[in-house]
Amino acid sequence: MADAGDSSSSSSSSSMEKQFEGFLQQLEQSGNLRDRIRAVAAEIESSTRLMHSCLLLVHQSRPIPEVAARAEAQIDVLKGLYRRLAEILLELPGQYYRYHGDWRTETQTAISLIAFLHWLQTENLLEHSEVEQKLGLDSSEFGLDIEDYLIGICFMSNELPRYVVNQVTTGDYDCPRKVLAFLTDLHASFRMLNLRNDFLRKKFDGMKYDLRRVEEVYYDVKIRGLAPTGDSTGDQGTQA
Amino acid sequence: MADAGDSSSSSSSSSMEKQFEGFLQQLEQSGNLRDRIRAVAAEIESSTRLMHSCLLLVHQSRPIPEVAARAEAQIDVLKGLYRRLAEILLELPGQYYRYHGDWRTETQTAISLIAFLHWLQTENLLEHSEVEQKLGLDSSEFGLDIEDYLIGICFMSNELPRYVVNQVTTGDYDCPRKVLAFLTDLHASFRMLNLRNDFLRKKFDGMKYDLRRVEEVYYDVKIRGLAPTGDSTGDQGTQA
Amino acid sequence: MADAGDSSSSSSSSSMEKQFEGFLQQLEQSGNLRDRIRAVAAEIESSTRLMHSCLLLVHQSRPIPEVAARAEAQIDVLKGLYRRLAEILLELPGQYYRYHGDWRTETQTAISLIAFLHWLQTENLLEHSEVEQKLGLDSSEFGLDIEDYLIGICFMSNELPRYVVNQVTTGDYDCPRKVLAFLTDLHASFRMLNLRNDFLRKKFDGMKYDLRRVEEVYYDVKIRGLAPTGDSTGDQGTQA
Amino acid sequence: MADAGDSSSSSSSSSMEKQFEGFLQQLEQSGNLRDRIRAVAAEIESSTRLMHSCLLLVHQSRPIPEVAARAEAQIDVLKGLYRRLAEILLELPGQYYRYHGDWRTETQTAISLIAFLHWLQTENLLEHSEVEQKLGLDSSEFGLDIEDYLIGICFMSNELPRYVVNQVTTGDYDCPRKVLAFLTDLHASFRMLNLRNDFLRKKFDGMKYDLRRVEEVYYDVKIRGLAPTGDSTGDQGTQA
Repeated sequence: MADAGDSSSSSSSSSMEKQFEGFLQQLEQSGNLRDRIRAVAAEIESSTRLMHSCLLLVHQSRPIPEVAARAEAQIDVLKGLYRRLAEILLELPGQYYRYHGDWRTETQTAISLIAFLHWLQTENLLEHSEVEQKLGLDSSEFGLDIEDYLIGICFMSNELPRYVVNQVTTGDYDCPRKVLAFLTDLHASFRMLNLRNDFLRKKFDGMKYDLRRVEEVYYDVKIRGLAPTGDSTGDQGTQA
Repeated sequence: MADAGDSSSSSSSSSMEKQFEGFLQQLEQSGNLRDRIRAVAAEIESSTRLMHSCLLLVHQSRPIPEVAARAEAQIDVLKGLYRRLAEILLELPGQYYRYHGDWRTETQTAISLIAFLHWLQTENLLEHSEVEQKLGLDSSEFGLDIEDYLIGICFMSNELPRYVVNQVTTGDYDCPRKVLAFLTDLHASFRMLNLRNDFLRKKFDGMKYDLRRVEEVYYDVKIRGLAPTGDSTGDQGTQA
Repeated sequence: MADAGDSSSSSSSSSMEKQFEGFLQQLEQSGNLRDRIRAVAAEIESSTRLMHSCLLLVHQSRPIPEVAARAEAQIDVLKGLYRRLAEILLELPGQYYRYHGDWRTETQTAISLIAFLHWLQTENLLEHSEVEQKLGLDSSEFGLDIEDYLIGICFMSNELPRYVVNQVTTGDYDCPRKVLAFLTDLHASFRMLNLRNDFLRKKFDGMKYDLRRVEEVYYDVKIRGLAPTGDSTGDQGTQA
Repeated sequence: MADAGDSSSSSSSSSMEKQFEGFLQQLEQSGNLRDRIRAVAAEIESSTRLMHSCLLLVHQSRPIPEVAARAEAQIDVLKGLYRRLAEILLELPGQYYRYHGDWRTETQTAISLIAFLHWLQTENLLEHSEVEQKLGLDSSEFGLDIEDYLIGICFMSNELPRYVVNQVTTGDYDCPRKVLAFLTDLHASFRMLNLRNDFLRKKFDGMKYDLRRVEEVYYDVKIRGLAPTGDSTGDQGTQA
């Protein structure tokens, strides 16, 4: 291969080398950026894990204000982490979506927990602009992707049947009605969207099982006359 | 569920609805954008298919200028298509990477063909800046992603063993030496890059099989004294 | 190849042969050791199968003392088998983890059964040091790997929903409350651990389904006023 | 679930918590150890990549002493890395095989390169004890697993056919005979071993293809009378 090797010293070869030296630098640069992003994403994951542990206590009927206080501390931690993420990405304008995959799963989980906490406190849906505000995100610079928000809301919905079951167990018979009203509205709102065959669509398709389970629990308390409203037609009513 | 439904008319519910109306618009907008991008990507795919058909004729030892003329016509078509793609994406600054997945496979194929044609004409590697120029891409607005370029070059490498085999069949015994020199340099250049465990790394790992196959063909012509250099001592030599 | 073969008689070749004779001995030795370990592991598997058969009778509401007596007989068998395993491994110090894969699955199953039996008898979690004691394991020589213990506990958790369902069927309405209290504590304890993305993490992730199932059963007995506490207001209450 | 939650404050529950706090520490400890091991393994991988790049130049018929000098520099780097690995593992005696999977692939690659270099320099097989010496490994503390050594040797064998082909191409017609003699002995030595159905057996099974390819190249040079020994019976001989 001696003669083949000879051409290695040609100018075209050194031009090739020069080009790849440039690539090396650029790949190192984007690799380092990705490492920094992943480090922050790992901290977001860690913070959401703690927040989740706090929120799980509502299933053991711990008072919401107590649970909320501990969970909200993590929102402040998350706010700081998203500020760091935004700072990293502002270094390279227009590359938000290039690295989006490196933090989106963690963000969807964060949204689901913050929205669940918000529902516990207000019985309302946490809106997109409200999450951005809570996390200190600025849409013009580093915003919250709408699909990530919607997927997070679907994850929150998955938590509701369990909450209803545990609330009824501890004697809160009005909870199913409230959750059902909320979930019915939420499901109807999602139905307005013309979702494509993607991950969000699949997650939304799962929401109907949450809805059905809550309907069943509501049915159980109504049929037994346990629901607090006077207009019940359950067991108690028939015996009255 | 009558009482549950009642709460739908509450203000919180209408606020939810209003938010989802906004999402509907935004999802429609990004969905339409994606449809337009995919339509252009389909045309790019169609054009590269035609270009590939032209280039395949080199395996039947048709003269390169004839093959090149027909293939180059497609480069002009591609240039027009990338202009359309750039125009669509310039409507939404900073979203290049959001939709990148919708045209990157087609682009990698286009790069591989244009680079193969360029090698046939010049025996040199088509550089990243040269492809951008040929396709009328402007890095500051809508450029060619480096990884897409590099993956395209790996695909081009996959075409070379077949070309060498067919050239030797038609009596071009100097082709293996030239391709081997080029591929050896290219492989060494790629090795400079510190590739991560991703798609590009996997494609590059395949390049060594191209290199070995070309080495084997070069071996075949050398050992038979068919290589055009004077120093051969193979079959021809023994018969002299 | 005659001349090639000639060099086989060189000194380098006989040195190569000598080395491989050493390898042959060492591979035979470790192969034999592995065979002996696997033979004991097969007996452990056989003993846990018998123990499992005994324990399954609790799902048919056979009295726990009767079930326990027969299951405990197998713990003695297991103790003897682990002594044999320890003796084999003490022949080659520092190779515990070399052959660990050959008995760990069987050990995890054994842990799950012994811990389930212990829970039936005491309503407490069998601790790591207690299992070691029961099986005659000495941590300084041949101990129980912590991950194997934890995986075994996850397997035990998988058995609890079925137990609760069958107990309620036979009229033991207090069982869900007790299992739920235990499983809630266990789940919270596992959450303290910062589990990596490995097999143990995956098994633990499954524990939440056990927890939910038990919550559902507890819900069922509570809403029907079947739970033994006086504050129920379910079906029984309305009929009172 | 209030009553269920009550038991959380029981002594059994706090004992459970205490046990898991111990696990948390031990899992953190082994997790940190694994991170440190993986960091060194990544550096070993990086060093072998550089060494491989150097060694690849022999396929372009660069003189062996020049190639060797650059490759040997990496052996010193590797020696330092294995010292670090040994130091980490000596902290926890008897856990070599617990973390073995975290560095074995990198080690097998290192062995294959060092053994190939050694063959280029001496035409002999690098023995197990010689590699340990080169890498500063001490069998009594942190040695080289025999299977890793043997797998590395199989990988080295995979490199030989390509080397032979490229050497013949550049006119070194004696190379096939020498490689064939070596590979024949090596293959025969491996055949002595009673390999089980595992990874090593699979790798060894692949060695016969290397042997066949080298036999074919040797046949090619012999039949064409290109082999340097006088006893050839190829093309030249028949025409003499």
